[in-house]
Amino acid sequence: MAEFLTGFKRTDMCGTLRAKDAGRVVTVMGFVQKYRNLGALIFIDLRDRTGIVQLAIKNTDPFYEKAASIRNEYVVAARGTVAPREGTNANASMDTGEIEILVSEIRILSEAAVTPFFITDNCNANETLRLTYRYLDLRRPFLQKLLMLRDKATRAARNYLAENGFLEIETPMLGKSTPEGARDYLVPSRIRQGAFYALPQSPQLYKQLLMIAGMDRYYQVARCFRDEDLRANRQPEFTQIDIEMSFVDSEEDVMEIAEGLIKRVFFECKGINFTEKFRRMTYQEAMRRFGSDKPDTRFGLELNDLSDALGKCGFAPFSDAVNAGGGIGCITYPSGAAKFTRKDADFFSEFVKDYGAKGVFSAYLKEDAAPAFFKHLTDAEITALMGVAGAQTGDAVFIIADKKKENVLNALGALRLHLAKKTGLIDESKYDILWVKDFPLFEYNEEDKRYYAMHHPFTSPKNEDLQFIKTDPGRVRAKAYDLVINGQEAGGGSIRIHSGEVQRLMFEALGMSEEDIKARFGFFIEAFRYGTPPHGGLAFGLDRLVMLLSGDDNIKDVIAFPKVQNASCLMTGAPDFVEEKQLNELGLKT
Amino acid sequence: MAEFLTGFKRTDMCGTLRAKDAGRVVTVMGFVQKYRNLGALIFIDLRDRTGIVQLAIKNTDPFYEKAASIRNEYVVAARGTVAPREGTNANASMDTGEIEILVSEIRILSEAAVTPFFITDNCNANETLRLTYRYLDLRRPFLQKLLMLRDKATRAARNYLAENGFLEIETPMLGKSTPEGARDYLVPSRIRQGAFYALPQSPQLYKQLLMIAGMDRYYQVARCFRDEDLRANRQPEFTQIDIEMSFVDSEEDVMEIAEGLIKRVFFECKGINFTEKFRRMTYQEAMRRFGSDKPDTRFGLELNDLSDALGKCGFAPFSDAVNAGGGIGCITYPSGAAKFTRKDADFFSEFVKDYGAKGVFSAYLKEDAAPAFFKHLTDAEITALMGVAGAQTGDAVFIIADKKKENVLNALGALRLHLAKKTGLIDESKYDILWVKDFPLFEYNEEDKRYYAMHHPFTSPKNEDLQFIKTDPGRVRAKAYDLVINGQEAGGGSIRIHSGEVQRLMFEALGMSEEDIKARFGFFIEAFRYGTPPHGGLAFGLDRLVMLLSGDDNIKDVIAFPKVQNASCLMTGAPDFVEEKQLNELGLKT
Repeated sequence: MAEFLTGFKRTDMCGTLRAKDAGRVVTVMGFVQKYRNLGALIFIDLRDRTGIVQLAIKNTDPFYEKAASIRNEYVVAARGTVAPREGTNANASMDTGEIEILVSEIRILSEAAVTPFFITDNCNANETLRLTYRYLDLRRPFLQKLLMLRDKATRAARNYLAENGFLEIETPMLGKSTPEGARDYLVPSRIRQGAFYALPQSPQLYKQLLMIAGMDRYYQVARCFRDEDLRANRQPEFTQIDIEMSFVDSEEDVMEIAEGLIKRVFFECKGINFTEKFRRMTYQEAMRRFGSDKPDTRFGLELNDLSDALGKCGFAPFSDAVNAGGGIGCITYPSGAAKFTRKDADFFSEFVKDYGAKGVFSAYLKEDAAPAFFKHLTDAEITALMGVAGAQTGDAVFIIADKKKENVLNALGALRLHLAKKTGLIDESKYDILWVKDFPLFEYNEEDKRYYAMHHPFTSPKNEDLQFIKTDPGRVRAKAYDLVINGQEAGGGSIRIHSGEVQRLMFEALGMSEEDIKARFGFFIEAFRYGTPPHGGLAFGLDRLVMLLSGDDNIKDVIAFPKVQNASCLMTGAPDFVEEKQLNELGLKT
Repeated sequence: MAEFLTGFKRTDMCGTLRAKDAGRVVTVMGFVQKYRNLGALIFIDLRDRTGIVQLAIKNTDPFYEKAASIRNEYVVAARGTVAPREGTNANASMDTGEIEILVSEIRILSEAAVTPFFITDNCNANETLRLTYRYLDLRRPFLQKLLMLRDKATRAARNYLAENGFLEIETPMLGKSTPEGARDYLVPSRIRQGAFYALPQSPQLYKQLLMIAGMDRYYQVARCFRDEDLRANRQPEFTQIDIEMSFVDSEEDVMEIAEGLIKRVFFECKGINFTEKFRRMTYQEAMRRFGSDKPDTRFGLELNDLSDALGKCGFAPFSDAVNAGGGIGCITYPSGAAKFTRKDADFFSEFVKDYGAKGVFSAYLKEDAAPAFFKHLTDAEITALMGVAGAQTGDAVFIIADKKKENVLNALGALRLHLAKKTGLIDESKYDILWVKDFPLFEYNEEDKRYYAMHHPFTSPKNEDLQFIKTDPGRVRAKAYDLVINGQEAGGGSIRIHSGEVQRLMFEALGMSEEDIKARFGFFIEAFRYGTPPHGGLAFGLDRLVMLLSGDDNIKDVIAFPKVQNASCLMTGAPDFVEEKQLNELGLKT
């Protein structure tokens, strides 16, 4: 039968006791990690979120029988004297290994059945089982440390923002559906049957309205929702550190504040002190050199443009691409000729198809045999290729040609990353942080034959590009910026449109009718009429930021109760069927 | 046309400039509160969230024409020199009244149409108009200060909790519907059509599972949802400071931590230093003396029990009530005989009907005429009444008799509050804080003929009362506690059941079938099997806490974007009708 705590008060956490505590009478509480009954002595490893400490019980102790009944994961409170463990008894692999607690009183607070998997970091239970028993999975030190890291990172961010005059302001979860891009999660209204709230994809409109309201600087650690088919490392609900500030109209104003936040978080969580300003790179440069708007610059393998060198050559796949307005590009892998095989080349050709390209010409520059397609090129063309590619004998050159330039860049960018990961070119001990800016304001969608906002429809065009918004939207650059850490987008934002007139031009460029604008954003356009400070902001993805801080690459690990691929929770069974009565009250039929 | 900020950087907030800043060149930015054009001089009052500062522009300034075009609520940036305002020019009613800014450059960042109401604290626009233009309403200093207070209170609470070892852990918004009490907001699943998530009424289950997971101490500033018909000062979404801790099994363990939090918040937000321990009062005592489980003890008018004194008297309304197992109670209002009228007495009788009583016997103890019903009482009974009531000639005694004791207490409690408010007995400058504890575990519902959990079904019974849970549930007291501030429930919580066995007894006492328990709480009961630390916690209502700190009594004022009575948002129009396509994707019909 479980015992009560009466008279017991915890004095120390298990993992914090050290040799200097020897002689102290302490009370610790936790879960039993393991027990060893040596007859004359029982040793119990007691675990809390700070670590593990060893309890020692002698067979002369009056509570020996009770102690002998203790099993793994029992919840136990123990009082005793900290004693040094001498010589070979010390355990150097444990932080508390220099001491143990000689128990004078022990209580069993809760018994425990045998757990479906053993609570340890090198647990080999499958993810489904671990997520079904998430409360047991979370007992593993690895996950506990991640949640503690998350708490710490959030706290560092909050403190920084408060010191910089940002107010934490909560915005509604039950909002209005204004779908543009992702799908909204809807919430049926009972009082107004047939009508729905939407859960926010981000607090974008509200935070801009707070600027119009004169709140000046806002932040929120905001839960956001997207009803999308989940890819790896996506969750239906996610958290962002959401920031907005007034009286800024240049990107640098926001980037400076945001950069300070990231530096603070890295310093407090990792002890890393970034003293220099993060690099700035334009979208154009990022795409040209790395084939990505979130380049990982911890390694080389930069892209080269072969369009001029080979555009007029006699090899149809190359010349046709350039003639159709596309391009030719390559990556040179130094000393790659002997590293990669024919089979690799086949794989690369398959691999790039996901990125819009049709294949890769893998040129292994061997002493003895030229790549097959070289026979279609003149000597001058081969020389030009080698020059642009910076290649020499022994290297591998991977060439992609396509009738669309962006396919060349995207595919080479993806191939570049793949090659680096596969061949271990990335120094994982390094943090590589940079800003990407000057994004295009619009993306053209071939299928819909219309422009979409690359970030969102509230992003301000660059002052000097506003003139093209009606005549040549593709040319307009945005006052937008992304922070890229180790090739991942950690956050992004923009200076916002703060003129109702420009906002209307933007909606029109996106093909929205007057009626549409009014129905969906009427209240927002109206707000701009009454004096709107220039403003901008950004949002960091907290889940991803914690992953980057931890070096872990599974988003589920940094979320206490994550959902799986089909957006369900294996522990609770949500979503689930509800009582008929509940649906009737909502006037809903499924 | 709007101008850009290029070259301008804010140096100071408007409301912070003082005489000591004279001579400094500053740049300020804000909204125009008002302007006065005196011909030779233009004065502009510029407002940001910190206050107002006066700008002065001379007709010899090259930008005089531009300045003359400025109207209310224009957004303006100005650079200039801080100059003292001498003698009668100083404005003692403004914090910045000793200085003004002699403008050397001014920019109009945004023009503004005439606002639908004037931006001032003594704005007389109706609430509907103000909520429709909430972003303008929020420009009023009164509301800005409330949101700043909310930020400050939240920050104080977070810092306190972090210092005490609590981790901020986020729990899901998309959860499982387990309705017990209030109605859930549902979120249809697209992937599993016909199934629903529920938005949390509180993170109760998750936070307990975090204790089972060994996270030890948790907190969250958590958004919660209840789909109830809104009464005054209720919102469909609200925020609580949600706390849970392990290794506690006595109420005092949690109350001590929670009390420290409230003290910290009051100190940081109001400069009030509560040095003494908050009073503890049992539920029994609170009901008996004040007729309320959230007694306002800033004034007297305590309840007296007349059941013994008058239970056997010849006045049927009294004796019948006692004979039927009910009671008779009273409040004595000193010197009330001349204060209240016959009409008041009629009103009181009506008033108490909402609280289950049938009426009030208002006994005005006048020199010249005894209350009518005294003729049914013997002299001894009258003497006894006066004795128990502590009444003397000149007082008013308000008596309620009912066949249910709780009706007597509830009605007298409500009447007591009403009398105090109406006659100004409450010292509003005072904070009156106390704990109410030892609540009954269950409430019996006459209509459903079953017991309900008074707090929630996870509340632990008192150790000594557990034995009655099957035989006499009404007698079982809970390890529950509420913090009451000025007669309002600021927060409440309990020690939780930490044994699966007891939890099952509890569900059974609530009339849940084995099947029901399994379908709704199966995963939760299962979790208890693997070792559960004793744990407990509480939640403070953040919205109400901020109201109490501010002295304001409208919950909408402390929420950035509140909803109105029918749970709609007047600004955005949410909830709203959505596209057919969205419903089709969810497999829903309305």
